[in-house]
Amino acid sequence: MNSIKISARNQLRGTVEAIVLGTVTAKVSVQVGENLIESVVTRQSVEEMGIKVGDSIVAIIKSTEVLLMTE
Amino acid sequence: MNSIKISARNQLRGTVEAIVLGTVTAKVSVQVGENLIESVVTRQSVEEMGIKVGDSIVAIIKSTEVLLMTE
Amino acid sequence: MNSIKISARNQLRGTVEAIVLGTVTAKVSVQVGENLIESVVTRQSVEEMGIKVGDSIVAIIKSTEVLLMTE
Amino acid sequence: MNSIKISARNQLRGTVEAIVLGTVTAKVSVQVGENLIESVVTRQSVEEMGIKVGDSIVAIIKSTEVLLMTE
Amino acid sequence: MNSIKISARNQLRGTVEAIVLGTVTAKVSVQVGENLIESVVTRQSVEEMGIKVGDSIVAIIKSTEVLLMTE
Amino acid sequence: MNSIKISARNQLRGTVEAIVLGTVTAKVSVQVGENLIESVVTRQSVEEMGIKVGDSIVAIIKSTEVLLMTE
Repeated sequence: MNSIKISARNQLRGTVEAIVLGTVTAKVSVQVGENLIESVVTRQSVEEMGIKVGDSIVAIIKSTEVLLMTE
Repeated sequence: MNSIKISARNQLRGTVEAIVLGTVTAKVSVQVGENLIESVVTRQSVEEMGIKVGDSIVAIIKSTEVLLMTE
Repeated sequence: MNSIKISARNQLRGTVEAIVLGTVTAKVSVQVGENLIESVVTRQSVEEMGIKVGDSIVAIIKSTEVLLMTE
Repeated sequence: MNSIKISARNQLRGTVEAIVLGTVTAKVSVQVGENLIESVVTRQSVEEMGIKVGDSIVAIIKSTEVLLMTE
Repeated sequence: MNSIKISARNQLRGTVEAIVLGTVTAKVSVQVGENLIESVVTRQSVEEMGIKVGDSIVAIIKSTEVLLMTE
Repeated sequence: MNSIKISARNQLRGTVEAIVLGTVTAKVSVQVGENLIESVVTRQSVEEMGIKVGDSIVAIIKSTEVLLMTE
């Protein structure tokens, strides 16, 4: 049983839709419900984690990184 | 018509569920589909924007701030 | 009339001076008064927003991302 | 002679205009040219650095933290 | 067996040395080898994770959040 | 004598172990005690600072960027 806890308050489960690899960074697009969440991480992490299209994945976002907009 | 564009690739529309006010910061919880997104911004922004429970709001997250986790 | 409000407390209006495109990311240099502000965003955002040299643009910075230095 | 170099591409020199102290964090407002830059740092840093209104200070921002907006 | 992988390239194991609780945020100090790593997270995360002085803990830092300084 | 002070609470001294250059960004790996700290900064900063393998360097991390994990 997994008992890991992470302080980041936003943990969104989804499915990898697309990956673009650069030299240093990579962009991973994750479908979470009706939203497409895009993440830029190192290419090395994508390779070491073996992330590929169709994988189940969790997008993690620290609450201090979330801006708010009203219209 | 609104033609504003923001570079942040993640813009999640939701409804304000809860607000906790500190001296400097404030935590705003936003229901986005099945996920509760939590944001820490300045108290001053919450007050100047007049954010209150029940408001429609957009949570904005830069893609470089999104971590990925696989299990 | 535009009534959009964003929680980020720093919104600096300037002019795009230079753009460098990578595979995943892009660097956009923005002249704001006497300062050159540099931003790294996704290449996809630069392309979708149609950002080009000479454009008027706003650099947005969340207050939790600002460090302070004294000498 | 000071030869320190910091990778953060945005280093904006200004004057401290206001300080709000919370329990954990503090908000420091810095006048930079025509712009007021606001920073949230730990209260402990404000105290240890002895930051006070009127001080000359440098606001430092990593380029990956700068969003762009066009209207 | 735990097979969780996180994209953040910096994962530093240490021991909780001190906790300061604010209304919204909390500061947690973690001894990692000879360095004291300080983290500001939400008070809610500290409470829900049950973090207390003396606990073993991992500090996680995304590589895009690390600045470099030379002297 | 150097009297510069930076608000970021985490300043880890180490040695540059590896550098990967992309078009816009670069990844710099820094050995700090037993930990390898990885940083993604702009390629321009690596070039202007003249960072090379073997250099003494300081990795700087704002406390709001540190997540916590317990197992």
